[in-house]
Amino acid sequence: MIKFTIITLFREAIEPYLKSSMMEKAVRKGLAEFDFVDLREFGLGPHKSVDDTPYGGGDGMLLRCEPVFAAIESVKAIDPDTKVILPTPVGETWNQGKAREFARDAHYIILCPHYEGYDERILSIVDYKISLGKYVLTGGELPALIIIDSVVRLIPGVLGGEKSAEIESFSDGDNLEYPQYTKPYDFRGMKVPDVLLSGNHGEIAKWRAVHSGKVE
Amino acid sequence: MIKFTIITLFREAIEPYLKSSMMEKAVRKGLAEFDFVDLREFGLGPHKSVDDTPYGGGDGMLLRCEPVFAAIESVKAIDPDTKVILPTPVGETWNQGKAREFARDAHYIILCPHYEGYDERILSIVDYKISLGKYVLTGGELPALIIIDSVVRLIPGVLGGEKSAEIESFSDGDNLEYPQYTKPYDFRGMKVPDVLLSGNHGEIAKWRAVHSGKVE
Repeated sequence: MIKFTIITLFREAIEPYLKSSMMEKAVRKGLAEFDFVDLREFGLGPHKSVDDTPYGGGDGMLLRCEPVFAAIESVKAIDPDTKVILPTPVGETWNQGKAREFARDAHYIILCPHYEGYDERILSIVDYKISLGKYVLTGGELPALIIIDSVVRLIPGVLGGEKSAEIESFSDGDNLEYPQYTKPYDFRGMKVPDVLLSGNHGEIAKWRAVHSGKVE
Repeated sequence: MIKFTIITLFREAIEPYLKSSMMEKAVRKGLAEFDFVDLREFGLGPHKSVDDTPYGGGDGMLLRCEPVFAAIESVKAIDPDTKVILPTPVGETWNQGKAREFARDAHYIILCPHYEGYDERILSIVDYKISLGKYVLTGGELPALIIIDSVVRLIPGVLGGEKSAEIESFSDGDNLEYPQYTKPYDFRGMKVPDVLLSGNHGEIAKWRAVHSGKVE
């Protein structure tokens, strides 16, 4: 089974996604488990503070080491083999190959940083720094969901008998899917290419190869 | 004001994100508006079907043209200037520059496709094809949230007096932020670099330039 423990201040924002659709199905089938740790519980002082201003000046508040280490260690105290993932723009770019590497029996912690940043020393407790792309978000919560979604759907059994996981876009490296058509044949004058209705599997395969992202 | 109308089958999975934290703040300040259209309402037949099998054979179900066009046209009937965004692996890669282009007074529709694909003719009603990265997700819902989050936080006023939007990672093209540190000075023997405590702004700026992603 694969398990993700998400350390966040915004559980209510992302938990509904994990309780819907295919993620919920994976949990129901006993193939995946999702858990949350509220970083605030490990905050400092009467206000349970988790961040502070940067040394050397600058805008914004940075996540402090103490609450982050305490939160991670509370999970590792129960399951020492847990690996820590940090979504961060300085990480390795996430792709389908990485999703496949992560899709195995394992327990991962995903630490969701606030957009303004984190104390650099937090990296010393992180196993995987992952970048989702060259854009800035308000926090690590959406990257956490992207990582979980792209990994969990690759766990055998999650997609059921659909067998779709391995034939889709990007499953074959940078390969892109060919154009696809369904009913109706004629939609407002736009027709399905006739070869796809020919029943000639060789011709259909050739057409799809020519029109896939890989060949172009 | 910027407005996003999301066409999806899984409103309950993603709406809580838009009602939390900074997105909710943007709505409360009147700077952003989020709306949903239930694709199922435009489904066909007694089962309100929105997808069907591919011509030419293959696994999976594809989104059909009729419900998608009807859903989009129901929005455009009220606001003809609305632009349509489709998250798709064959789109242009999303980045901070694109987020900045989209961060203006405008009304966008984001169509969330199911992971198994869509009828190619749907592209004829799409203005922007956007790829979030080289990985497969169960649907377009997370890409929709990523696009919205990265755009809305750039709308003037959303981040309040924090002024952080323009100094973060990637705001300057591919530039990466320098390492940052906050209290405590000594965390388990890991100390903050002394230059950051020096008060010498020139030396601090030089250290940060050397240690930013751009210079390395």
